[in-house]
Amino acid sequence: MELRADERIDHLQGAGVQIIQSPDVFAFSLDAVLLADFAQVGPKSRVVDLAAGNGAVGLFVAPRTTGQVTLIELQPRLADMAQRSVVLNQMAHVDVHTLDLAQATTVVPKDSVDVVTCNPPYFKVSAQSVKSPNAHLALARHELTTDFATVCATTAALLRYQGKAFFVHRPDRLQELLSTMAAAKLAPKRLRFIHPKADREANMVLIEGIRSGKPDGIRILPPLTVYSADGQYSEEVARLLYG
Amino acid sequence: MELRADERIDHLQGAGVQIIQSPDVFAFSLDAVLLADFAQVGPKSRVVDLAAGNGAVGLFVAPRTTGQVTLIELQPRLADMAQRSVVLNQMAHVDVHTLDLAQATTVVPKDSVDVVTCNPPYFKVSAQSVKSPNAHLALARHELTTDFATVCATTAALLRYQGKAFFVHRPDRLQELLSTMAAAKLAPKRLRFIHPKADREANMVLIEGIRSGKPDGIRILPPLTVYSADGQYSEEVARLLYG
Repeated sequence: MELRADERIDHLQGAGVQIIQSPDVFAFSLDAVLLADFAQVGPKSRVVDLAAGNGAVGLFVAPRTTGQVTLIELQPRLADMAQRSVVLNQMAHVDVHTLDLAQATTVVPKDSVDVVTCNPPYFKVSAQSVKSPNAHLALARHELTTDFATVCATTAALLRYQGKAFFVHRPDRLQELLSTMAAAKLAPKRLRFIHPKADREANMVLIEGIRSGKPDGIRILPPLTVYSADGQYSEEVARLLYG
Repeated sequence: MELRADERIDHLQGAGVQIIQSPDVFAFSLDAVLLADFAQVGPKSRVVDLAAGNGAVGLFVAPRTTGQVTLIELQPRLADMAQRSVVLNQMAHVDVHTLDLAQATTVVPKDSVDVVTCNPPYFKVSAQSVKSPNAHLALARHELTTDFATVCATTAALLRYQGKAFFVHRPDRLQELLSTMAAAKLAPKRLRFIHPKADREANMVLIEGIRSGKPDGIRILPPLTVYSADGQYSEEVARLLYG
């Protein structure tokens, strides 16, 4: 396995997966770990991960299914890392495409997918919002090349009837997130809020949507707390990270 | 103080308030206690409580303001209980009106209110949904005479610019609640989910909205847990109930 000078191989013990990372370019965050855990992937699920970055979410869920897992990532540098991680983990059922997610239906048939996951860019673009000197990270974090409405439209197009979408996003956009999903016929069904500590406001939300599901059935799962009062990872998060 | 045969006087120690209740007709629930605590009422706030029932929310917040507190309740039997509780607590700054909440602006000027609270009927009406033999409770719990869009429109009409609304509702309707508020120019700002126990799904949500506030700034507060693992009220809830 060839690594570039800035790259390293990390091991997500909880998933039993190795992943090529670069602190200079892109490294997965806890968000991807929590999203992969939240996603309900069956033993034969056909999965697509949109805005795949260096492939974290797709790589983490791939061991749970024998179905094809397709990763869609716009940035060649990140898609290349993901592709080499696929080889590293000998995952023959995972394919990677360097592609704008809006074009995903050119490589995966419409209405054919059981599960779509997406850890999309969180931040809207404003004049002062994009100052990252790391262009790869800027694209991954800001809605420069895509937005949540496009994520939802693409997800709805890919999913079979009653197929499931799993997203992680920022709760400050909750009203917009839920109404954008509803408008795309992805009925929000389960929400789980992530709190850094038990007495802190949520900084992430995990959302499950069902294609053409009924409206008005949202379930709010017990909250997930990242750190215990003593500053250590909570039991649940430690298990996901370290097994 | 005259009590009917079915009535009793309960004492909410946490608020230092007495309230006339009837197990046969209507008694306030924890929802009202939590909503009153959630509402940010300043020392001179002008307050209106819509769908006031037997007056619980209004009575509980009244000690925190010298501003006028107006209770609007459609059912004469409940409004009468509320009115007698006002006398019982010698609250000269609280007035009660037997009125459809949609008519609230006939007794309170538009754009004049600092805080609107509402613990509205939670359930949509369907053929099989209303089977309560208690007609008072049926009206209080089901959207027979009003609905959330009407609550929001009335609230927005009453509130001054940047005035605040505080609602308690069911989280299964979250997407509809947030989009209905946004459509009425009540920007959802703070949400707090109520979980019966730490490991159970939320069964209530407290929502703060700001009239003509900016969209996209929702804060998810730390969750509130009603019962501890040992089945006793949590510290926070016990303090609200017992002081």
